[in-house]
Amino acid sequence: MKAVIIGAGNVATHIGRALVAKGIQVSQVWSRNAARAETLAHSIGAQVSQQIAQLDADADFCIIAVKDDAIVEILPQLSHFNGLVLHTAGAASLEIFSGLFTKYGVLYPLQTFSVEKELDFSKVPLCIEASSIKELSSLRKLAETLSESVFEINSDQRKVLHLAAVFACNFPNYLFGVAERLIADQQMDFDILRPLILETAEKVQVALPQKVQTGPAIREDEATISSHLRLLKDKPELTHIYQLLSDSIKKTKK
Amino acid sequence: MKAVIIGAGNVATHIGRALVAKGIQVSQVWSRNAARAETLAHSIGAQVSQQIAQLDADADFCIIAVKDDAIVEILPQLSHFNGLVLHTAGAASLEIFSGLFTKYGVLYPLQTFSVEKELDFSKVPLCIEASSIKELSSLRKLAETLSESVFEINSDQRKVLHLAAVFACNFPNYLFGVAERLIADQQMDFDILRPLILETAEKVQVALPQKVQTGPAIREDEATISSHLRLLKDKPELTHIYQLLSDSIKKTKK
Repeated sequence: MKAVIIGAGNVATHIGRALVAKGIQVSQVWSRNAARAETLAHSIGAQVSQQIAQLDADADFCIIAVKDDAIVEILPQLSHFNGLVLHTAGAASLEIFSGLFTKYGVLYPLQTFSVEKELDFSKVPLCIEASSIKELSSLRKLAETLSESVFEINSDQRKVLHLAAVFACNFPNYLFGVAERLIADQQMDFDILRPLILETAEKVQVALPQKVQTGPAIREDEATISSHLRLLKDKPELTHIYQLLSDSIKKTKK
Repeated sequence: MKAVIIGAGNVATHIGRALVAKGIQVSQVWSRNAARAETLAHSIGAQVSQQIAQLDADADFCIIAVKDDAIVEILPQLSHFNGLVLHTAGAASLEIFSGLFTKYGVLYPLQTFSVEKELDFSKVPLCIEASSIKELSSLRKLAETLSESVFEINSDQRKVLHLAAVFACNFPNYLFGVAERLIADQQMDFDILRPLILETAEKVQVALPQKVQTGPAIREDEATISSHLRLLKDKPELTHIYQLLSDSIKKTKK
């Protein structure tokens, strides 16, 4: 198997490294950002392609890992490609390929990637969808080479999954930051909260979140809620967040 | 060193086990719930005390690990105790002991405990505060026997820490549950989100949350935000949460 990659950001880098680690050749990389293309290509033994139209037409897969709104600009330049064209976006439908290609699919890795942080790609859930049963079978083979965790997910499901990831990752991370700033104001270091954050995530690796909900809202401990709101009295936005989330937690009990 | 414990819930159980694991004898346990007192006492080689007033007056420490509002009911029954009296509550001040005892302090473990889930107590941040420098020194010795992570935290700081823990643990866990229900509605299993949740927590073990914020709000990707809000159109409460948190994330950028 041989692949070419479009993009050189977090997702492209992690997929590129994972492909090479599993013995799948990445022959070429193209990115709008030439320096990043060079860095990624160098690290995975690939060549930099100067133009999308020059990407090796006979690679088995072309993996497009760029920002969602850049995908549609790229597709017309890729009309020469003979292999399976894949995008990696949570929010883009399979149908963006329709009429432009005959063999296409989606390989959506449901994970938060940073170039700086290594992670075990074999544990990354890969959501796959393809234009036909035959292409789905090729894509599944690729996905199962990269990860132990492969899910067949259609475009409607993937959109909901992308939304759910905001609730499961982006919003919690923001709240971690709120907590960090609250304690920094009182000369306390974020280290004191880090084990709590990790344990909260570890608990839901085995249980469902609703089963392990703790805190004043689920206990309906109004005295503690009031004392927390007093501490937030000069912070209207955090007061609003605290009240809204506490009210929602109380409702889940009913 | 010898301790007695009041309470037999999650915190009492984890502290009791940690004490015994570090060679500190727990001679007695009392709990309003006699069956739970029996279970805990049995598991750590302690006796069940029938009454608070019968707890061994000469133990070095009495550790009170009960619900916040139950602490004040317990204190008058403990007037015979000669050792250091400690509570373990985040939201209760040190001053609740004042006038009733001469040697007292707080040993607040900043972690989310479940009786069913083991954890490494040596990594649990312990927040300590005491009635005098002498008692603080005894308490620090106890705390450092139990954990590598001991912080001297006054009552005002501890209240803010307790509030911050709601933002760092209780609210994120609620949002994990929201995500779980969103995907369950589309016949997807929570397993698909678990690695994302764990990685989100692992990222902030080394970085500050603000540095690793991802998602449509921080990118000010209004097209994705709009498409997410369309998916939530029949869920007014989740729409409200989504908008409020997204707006707050956007403001942190400014």
